[in-house]
Amino acid sequence: MDFDVLKPLLISGNKEKIVLLVMDGLGGLPMEPGGKTELEAANTPNMDRLAETSELGLHEGIRVGITPGSGPAHLSLFGYDPLKYVVGRGALSALGIDFDLRDDDVAARGNFCTVDEDGRITDRRAGRISTEAGERLCALLNEKVSIPGVEVFLRPVKEYRFLLVIRGEGLRAVIAETDPQVVGEKPLLAKALNPDSAKAAEIVQEFVRQAEKILADEHPANMLVLRGFAQIPDWPKFPEAFGLKSIAIAMYPMYRGVAKLVGMDSPPAAHDYDEEIDLLEANWDKYDFFFVHIKKTDSFGEDGNFEKKVEEIEKVDALIPRILALDPSVLIITGDHSTPCVMKKHSWHPVPVLLHARTCRPDGVSSFGERACLQGGLGVRFPAYELMPLALAYAGRLEKFGA
Amino acid sequence: MDFDVLKPLLISGNKEKIVLLVMDGLGGLPMEPGGKTELEAANTPNMDRLAETSELGLHEGIRVGITPGSGPAHLSLFGYDPLKYVVGRGALSALGIDFDLRDDDVAARGNFCTVDEDGRITDRRAGRISTEAGERLCALLNEKVSIPGVEVFLRPVKEYRFLLVIRGEGLRAVIAETDPQVVGEKPLLAKALNPDSAKAAEIVQEFVRQAEKILADEHPANMLVLRGFAQIPDWPKFPEAFGLKSIAIAMYPMYRGVAKLVGMDSPPAAHDYDEEIDLLEANWDKYDFFFVHIKKTDSFGEDGNFEKKVEEIEKVDALIPRILALDPSVLIITGDHSTPCVMKKHSWHPVPVLLHARTCRPDGVSSFGERACLQGGLGVRFPAYELMPLALAYAGRLEKFGA
Repeated sequence: MDFDVLKPLLISGNKEKIVLLVMDGLGGLPMEPGGKTELEAANTPNMDRLAETSELGLHEGIRVGITPGSGPAHLSLFGYDPLKYVVGRGALSALGIDFDLRDDDVAARGNFCTVDEDGRITDRRAGRISTEAGERLCALLNEKVSIPGVEVFLRPVKEYRFLLVIRGEGLRAVIAETDPQVVGEKPLLAKALNPDSAKAAEIVQEFVRQAEKILADEHPANMLVLRGFAQIPDWPKFPEAFGLKSIAIAMYPMYRGVAKLVGMDSPPAAHDYDEEIDLLEANWDKYDFFFVHIKKTDSFGEDGNFEKKVEEIEKVDALIPRILALDPSVLIITGDHSTPCVMKKHSWHPVPVLLHARTCRPDGVSSFGERACLQGGLGVRFPAYELMPLALAYAGRLEKFGA
Repeated sequence: MDFDVLKPLLISGNKEKIVLLVMDGLGGLPMEPGGKTELEAANTPNMDRLAETSELGLHEGIRVGITPGSGPAHLSLFGYDPLKYVVGRGALSALGIDFDLRDDDVAARGNFCTVDEDGRITDRRAGRISTEAGERLCALLNEKVSIPGVEVFLRPVKEYRFLLVIRGEGLRAVIAETDPQVVGEKPLLAKALNPDSAKAAEIVQEFVRQAEKILADEHPANMLVLRGFAQIPDWPKFPEAFGLKSIAIAMYPMYRGVAKLVGMDSPPAAHDYDEEIDLLEANWDKYDFFFVHIKKTDSFGEDGNFEKKVEEIEKVDALIPRILALDPSVLIITGDHSTPCVMKKHSWHPVPVLLHARTCRPDGVSSFGERACLQGGLGVRFPAYELMPLALAYAGRLEKFGA
């Protein structure tokens, strides 16, 4: 959906509330041909009862046949076509470790690497140094690097990988990577790819010069390379795009980060499902839109633990009465992608959706599961980014188009 | 559908006839959760029998979640994506009151308003004068305004609202509105927004000067403002776009007007359903495509009168044998949008469609209703503008694409 189409239709002053409950990796497959999926095997009396007065269907996160990563899958659920709204790798790295990236910040992904006496790379991953070693080197660089007029932040990610953020006024990040991607070459210069980025490129290059000296005795991590230079994207945000004051309730930084990108507030992490619903209740009067994220369904999918994934779905089912007690105008229950236990990874299979609202048209479906959703009123294999316009419609938040 | 794709595929000389029967606001909702919609509640033996050898589905007029106005909804049924084919407000006004707008005409919506002795607007709606008063003022202006070389038409719409049409050679209508949209300001000049529109803007300004004098003693309607300057859009029309000589049979001017925009002929209004079918029969040999519009299903939807809407659907069902007796190659029965009685207004819910033709593939659906259509062969939530290519295909009017 084009935001330009929706914007003139938004009704201001509407107070109807929308809840988007996302069970990560919800979609599944049977372990045996013809068997039940995780969602079908789960005992979900609350969601099944809700299904009777809801509309159901199956969405696709990116495009047919494409297995979604978590970032783009969530963008799609938030109404942003992930093929049009692309987040730079550096910015994604920042989101993933809960770094508070600001508007003019330039972020990049970094690797510690090994260079020989001529400065040529001999190992692009510095012998896969430990996470602890990576943390120590980041601390060292944070302490010693000094560039007038800018702040430089090094943050460890995992093993040899780190995040670099440069904070200064008017910085732009269209900069070529310094990683030559092969051994035997020297790290490349951080070259500005447009005139606006010249200042940032110069600062990055100064950072690299200083880092080279500071790391000189830290073999095998005696150098670093940078790529994925990026900034916070300048997208229409939830308040302008949808007229929604929004909050993300999630236990993992990645999901709060993606939600922040689209203009949602995000309180500190909850520690379990009950705390998530506590946060929902505590913030009910302050927001219009509530994104609640459940992580473990995906984790058990990746582990291939069918029983545990079923159990997590059942735990979420038990939360439904607390959510319904708040009387949301629209409640959407879905996943961001499928993570079938039998595959132990994300998959391209469409994801079950249940949309509950007062003005739902009966579709004759009375349980929440993949096979049942095939018969639902929302249809099969529709783009996930259609859910937001639907949510706005069912919440009565959109005017008629044309006379 | 892109007209450029269809055009080279059109088969000339094909005489297969297509009927598009539109029940305005057909789609509905149950009054009680889980109950029947208006169409499901209606006793429709003819349409149900037809369903057995038809393909069914549900279309969306504009885009997911968007509630269609009648104009864009009909454009979509006629095969024109209403986000690409936008009609200016002035032209729409002309259509709505059956004004015969011609190619070079410039149309605008007008308001009578009140100005003080300095010419500043004190009431943008002239105290909401009566429709009769508006009619009298339009007649007065029609009589007294005189601009050499052009014709000026004033037509009352309702209360303080009127239509202005200027007819002259080579007029173009990219002109800024004269309505400042706030009180306390003087009406603005009618400014040409491109060089081609300079002539029309000058004529409009001369009209405003004369009107100001003629209305001087008509307080509270002692001035007027104009907006929505527009012309008939230059779109591909039915004969070229689809190879169809087409006729619109409708009781209300708005629908005949939209049909005229896409190149349909439109005889004077019928007064009831039987007269509509009389017109269909009388014109059967002269046209390829017949758009038949039924208004009251929408009116009773807007009134919230479930029983009456059901009754209207049953009346339309009773017309089906007369239509089938003409042996159309393709008969499509649908609505332009949903108008659920329980909502008393247009809604975004998908609209049931029945497409009947000799080459329909059985989809196992044997009644015409929202739930039944979910199982139909045409699919769920497809764009309404896909119906025209389907109609052409089922009429055997399209060549194969490629070798």
